[in-house]
Amino acid sequence: MLAEIITIGDEILIGQIVDTNSAYIGKELSKIGVSVYQITSVQDNRQQILTALKEASQRVDIVIITGGLGPTKDDITKHTLCEYFNDTLVEDALVLKHVEELFKKYSKNPILDVNRKQALVLSKAIVLPNKKGTAPGMWINDKETVFVSMPGVPFEMKYLMQKEVLPKIISEFDRPYIIHKTFVTYGIGESSLAEKITDWEDQLPKHIKLAYLPSLGKVRLRLTATGKDEHDLEKSVTKESKKMLSLIGNHVYGEDKGENIEVLVARLLTEKKMTLATAESFTGGKIAEAITAIAGASKYYKGSIVSYATEAKINVLGVDESIIKEHSVVSEVVAKAMASNVRKLLKTDFAIATTGNAGPTKGDSDAEIGTVFIAVASPNGVFVSKFLQGSQRERIVEKSVNKAFELLYKEILQS
Amino acid sequence: MLAEIITIGDEILIGQIVDTNSAYIGKELSKIGVSVYQITSVQDNRQQILTALKEASQRVDIVIITGGLGPTKDDITKHTLCEYFNDTLVEDALVLKHVEELFKKYSKNPILDVNRKQALVLSKAIVLPNKKGTAPGMWINDKETVFVSMPGVPFEMKYLMQKEVLPKIISEFDRPYIIHKTFVTYGIGESSLAEKITDWEDQLPKHIKLAYLPSLGKVRLRLTATGKDEHDLEKSVTKESKKMLSLIGNHVYGEDKGENIEVLVARLLTEKKMTLATAESFTGGKIAEAITAIAGASKYYKGSIVSYATEAKINVLGVDESIIKEHSVVSEVVAKAMASNVRKLLKTDFAIATTGNAGPTKGDSDAEIGTVFIAVASPNGVFVSKFLQGSQRERIVEKSVNKAFELLYKEILQS
Repeated sequence: MLAEIITIGDEILIGQIVDTNSAYIGKELSKIGVSVYQITSVQDNRQQILTALKEASQRVDIVIITGGLGPTKDDITKHTLCEYFNDTLVEDALVLKHVEELFKKYSKNPILDVNRKQALVLSKAIVLPNKKGTAPGMWINDKETVFVSMPGVPFEMKYLMQKEVLPKIISEFDRPYIIHKTFVTYGIGESSLAEKITDWEDQLPKHIKLAYLPSLGKVRLRLTATGKDEHDLEKSVTKESKKMLSLIGNHVYGEDKGENIEVLVARLLTEKKMTLATAESFTGGKIAEAITAIAGASKYYKGSIVSYATEAKINVLGVDESIIKEHSVVSEVVAKAMASNVRKLLKTDFAIATTGNAGPTKGDSDAEIGTVFIAVASPNGVFVSKFLQGSQRERIVEKSVNKAFELLYKEILQS
Repeated sequence: MLAEIITIGDEILIGQIVDTNSAYIGKELSKIGVSVYQITSVQDNRQQILTALKEASQRVDIVIITGGLGPTKDDITKHTLCEYFNDTLVEDALVLKHVEELFKKYSKNPILDVNRKQALVLSKAIVLPNKKGTAPGMWINDKETVFVSMPGVPFEMKYLMQKEVLPKIISEFDRPYIIHKTFVTYGIGESSLAEKITDWEDQLPKHIKLAYLPSLGKVRLRLTATGKDEHDLEKSVTKESKKMLSLIGNHVYGEDKGENIEVLVARLLTEKKMTLATAESFTGGKIAEAITAIAGASKYYKGSIVSYATEAKINVLGVDESIIKEHSVVSEVVAKAMASNVRKLLKTDFAIATTGNAGPTKGDSDAEIGTVFIAVASPNGVFVSKFLQGSQRERIVEKSVNKAFELLYKEILQS
């Protein structure tokens, strides 16, 4: 079963927003065995939308459309769908009631005509009620193809996907099973990995595909199997995974269930009932943010001292001014002191500390841009590593945050 | 002049990664007057790539392709381009030299055959040297259409765009001018805005387009003008902007030059030579992270106490345990104490503090999920506001971070 995603909106084409909707929809469809054949983004332009709809209808079984359903004049999706299906708009009483209630509840202003028009739907559409906003979703059966239209606001679209679209696809379509299994490797490049597993890759059965997903400091390997029998697929993927692990197991951190390494850290800390604090300099709160983005973080995470300024390292973290003077603020000893001190201050089992220079200027230290120290304090002591992370600010921070979690993960495993 | 962006890779279609490359390319092309007609994402599949290339060539003047140039077997873009152009691959001596040097410099491992193959390019391509990686870009003139192929790794793609592709487009194509001007409004909904400016919108000249970009807590209004004379465009956009501002100026925060409110805050603090500290509870470092993501933050930002646990609020921030007991940790008085104390602790002019409950469980307080207090401390005193931010963890945090910057911005303006 094939799907195409069409996202509508000038803001996507001129790069004013990143199209995260497509990734979300692709992931969710993929989970229920629907293969996304293509993603197409077009402008708020009648002719372009018509062409995209027509081309998609020839390629796939279901077309998922987002965007262009707002109340303002640049939102033309609904009228264009009307034209495409040679249909008319009719007022849906339930949607109108919902829109009026939303206005009563949340708005200080009286309801406007443009808001009432949100209740107009295609006469042949099955209305998908949208509790989270004013524009309803629509499900349209047209000849061989199903078209689904949803608003582009991400949390409204997600609500409609979960509550309406995915259940309806599951109940109305026969789908093959698709299984993804992804492994995370650290410390080895894409091409060296490829060389080690080339013979295994060549003997993979036809229904299993391998993909390399390199990113900063790690390469993920994804196995994708497609077929009719879920049990058989699980079996063959498990078998091939084992063969692969026998070749490169020492580089594999574990299976990636769509999880970042901070999720693995979170799980490990929860299991061990141990706690964590952080002291961040140039990473500026990015480690804290990654940890607290995970629900339940308050169980194991006490907090962070983001000591961006040198004086904060001295006054809040209690790093000795003399060692900063002697070794500079970007140094092994300062990183170690930061980790030890925040661990004591917040009374935790583990602590991570970062100090470094992310550029563009040198700041309070003579360290070269890209020079980074990461320290991990644990019940076993304090350990520090030095890294040279290139010259681009964003990448220096991103690589260092990844590295910090990697070092922490290893240390928790051993504690 | 029209462009199409084709991004290649199964990982995009199954939603394993978000396609940020397209947004970047769209934004950069837009700046130099190239209009992106469509973005198409396809799988690593020969037939799909061939079809996408063919369809794009019929629609636009230049096709920008990213992805599928890696050294592993799932990377098939180069061979497929060869097939499409009926061309052969030849070894490029300069690229080979570059790849060999990269290996000598950065890899502990000897260079492999798959790495050497990165030096193979289409015989009719103009090679675009890639200093940041092993896969070069290629510029191919084919009949009426130009095709550009780049690696999908974002920082390599960005390097090639800036260094090679954009300069070459500028020198080889006549382009119209495109001007975008975006205004940020706060505190008014999309439909109420639309009502206030509907007459003005109707009288806009044909070469100027208006778009509404609603997001959490704000609506951006974007004017786009296209034409031959840059000076005339500037003049007409300025004229229309003024008319619009006379209608809704009280809701407009300022022009959005692709800048977030934290950039406006950064500029204001730098101009006023004033400093900032933060104390974050449920926002978990997200405010610190947003501030330090801006180069030069060390000039005005001292740091943050991410006091995720109640004990950190007491031990590090020095919030009185008795007021926490009396008012609960999610309360007006605690927010105020956090802001005042961190301002004193880090000796700054301003401080923001957040305390609230982002769920999914209630944590150390009885406050309803979504209840949030944000305090701003300034030379004029400490001010606190209460907000109810819904029930979804991510949105509660995101809305509150925006709100915190908004409150801070207003306070700095008045100080």
